[in-house]
Amino acid sequence: MTMSGSNRQILLRRRPQGPITDDCFELVDSAVPAPADGEAVVRVRYLSLDPTIRIWVERDSYLPAIALGDPVRSAGLGVVVESRSEEFPVGATVMGMLGWQDYAVVGGDQPGNVLPEGIEPADALSIYGGTGITAYFGLLDVGRPVPGDTVLVSGAAGATGSIVGQIAKLKGCRVIGIAGTEDKCRWLVDELGFDAAINYRTEDVAARIGTLCPDGIDVFFDNVGGAILEAALDHLALKARVVLCGSISSYDTAEEQPGPRNLMNLVIQRARMEGFLVLDYLDRFAEAALDLAVWVAEGKILHRVDIVEGLEATPAAMHKLFDGTNTGKLIVHVAD
Amino acid sequence: MTMSGSNRQILLRRRPQGPITDDCFELVDSAVPAPADGEAVVRVRYLSLDPTIRIWVERDSYLPAIALGDPVRSAGLGVVVESRSEEFPVGATVMGMLGWQDYAVVGGDQPGNVLPEGIEPADALSIYGGTGITAYFGLLDVGRPVPGDTVLVSGAAGATGSIVGQIAKLKGCRVIGIAGTEDKCRWLVDELGFDAAINYRTEDVAARIGTLCPDGIDVFFDNVGGAILEAALDHLALKARVVLCGSISSYDTAEEQPGPRNLMNLVIQRARMEGFLVLDYLDRFAEAALDLAVWVAEGKILHRVDIVEGLEATPAAMHKLFDGTNTGKLIVHVAD
Repeated sequence: MTMSGSNRQILLRRRPQGPITDDCFELVDSAVPAPADGEAVVRVRYLSLDPTIRIWVERDSYLPAIALGDPVRSAGLGVVVESRSEEFPVGATVMGMLGWQDYAVVGGDQPGNVLPEGIEPADALSIYGGTGITAYFGLLDVGRPVPGDTVLVSGAAGATGSIVGQIAKLKGCRVIGIAGTEDKCRWLVDELGFDAAINYRTEDVAARIGTLCPDGIDVFFDNVGGAILEAALDHLALKARVVLCGSISSYDTAEEQPGPRNLMNLVIQRARMEGFLVLDYLDRFAEAALDLAVWVAEGKILHRVDIVEGLEATPAAMHKLFDGTNTGKLIVHVAD
Repeated sequence: MTMSGSNRQILLRRRPQGPITDDCFELVDSAVPAPADGEAVVRVRYLSLDPTIRIWVERDSYLPAIALGDPVRSAGLGVVVESRSEEFPVGATVMGMLGWQDYAVVGGDQPGNVLPEGIEPADALSIYGGTGITAYFGLLDVGRPVPGDTVLVSGAAGATGSIVGQIAKLKGCRVIGIAGTEDKCRWLVDELGFDAAINYRTEDVAARIGTLCPDGIDVFFDNVGGAILEAALDHLALKARVVLCGSISSYDTAEEQPGPRNLMNLVIQRARMEGFLVLDYLDRFAEAALDLAVWVAEGKILHRVDIVEGLEATPAAMHKLFDGTNTGKLIVHVAD
């Protein structure tokens, strides 16, 4: 048996030089794949849009670049519609690197995880998915905050940053977020419980950090890089930890971003700057998910999902990650 | 009783804008100080010239800037010539922040350490002083090399770098040094046992690192910063450690040094960059000195001392730290 209908796929056609443009991608109709032995075919329901996809379309990094002509690599969630695998029975909800397409194959060399009952699909891709786990281990394992620490978060209204700040509050820290609109700043302070927020588009970030962190920053969780990283480095406390999660300010541009001129402050303050990837924490996934589930159930962590409708809207939606128009986790709804 | 004669002092008169110039300093004749109760007066014999002095003359950092009109702060070694302190008896050899002058006061709020018998003064200021201790803890405690690691050292023919590389060899690492002359490179490889050396003035540093470190750099011990740091960041191994000891390339210049544009590689490689100061290891001084003494006695660590003659030559000698003309530890011989 093979599925009827066609499989819409968004293929990578060219690598962006600067901001992503429509002609980087092509929407094509392909045949719905048939599962080989040990494989299953998944009807994609939701796709997770993450800044790191911008790296994958351009170049090799911690994963190989997406090959030209391939569907764009992307985490996603769907339902098994045809199966030759005991691991992925028909009807199971599966998460994996499903890609920008209607139907994906899992099994064999395409790993996937069957989702337990009772988890909202959007939650599985955000708070209980890569986003929540990134926030959890990035803050706790790399940043190692202790009660009373001052924690600064950039990209604070984004999917990861908003969770980081709330976990830091739960751990007894003073938390300051940096975001790009007044609405986002209000959301951080009024709804998520941040102690303060800085609007990087309208305020002098370095000066505001100085005012808000008179004893310096103990943990800086950086999603942004560039000028904001440099501003934060000027206000490190002794033995500060700078958690490098990403550098969104440099992803979707062809302009060479200058590096921070003040790395010497890492010496002066005996501070540590460390990069990490959630991929390295996959074997500790359950540890994080359990804590996060409790905090969510207790109402101690709020998370916002920004859902875009339709596979065909996916390339344009990527811009929202870089132009500051999304709040919380960006997800594409492909099909029910 | 007070000492006869005068106390030549080199005072800081203005802060440098760019490279140090002669008019930043003034040589004056002062009265030899008299010790207050609990103090002793030390005849300065040797001064340690360190790149960090260039920071102290310009600005506040981990220590306050040297005040205008004060003798230039500097580690040194001398003999107690007059004492009202049981801790510092006449005839004792004392190390401390003696400053650029003939006579200094120790005791009270001017700490000093009485040197055990049998240590050469120049050794006390280099291998058994701040330099050796910096190399020891910076490499072992911050860099944490394991046998088989590839260790890259910048400023490798300098006082600290040359010791770092030799300790790394003792710990079973492959060691590559970066230095600025063919003579220095030969010294590193032929005499100190480095596996290879890169001449940053004549070679393409990034390309050579790529060739010499095909599996990437596990530990980069950086004394230099700037373009060399950026080149090294392009070749980090997974979970690499970048030890920031200093940033000599930026100290003696008014030009704004751009930061490395590739900090994102810390994320890609899940790498750690950490600054440290030897001041934080003073309570573990003995631990390092014991190991270093054994290694020196066994001939496993060689160290070179570059001695400049005369207090009056001190300001000009500072240039040697930044123009690449010294090898090993730079020391001023003030008096016998």
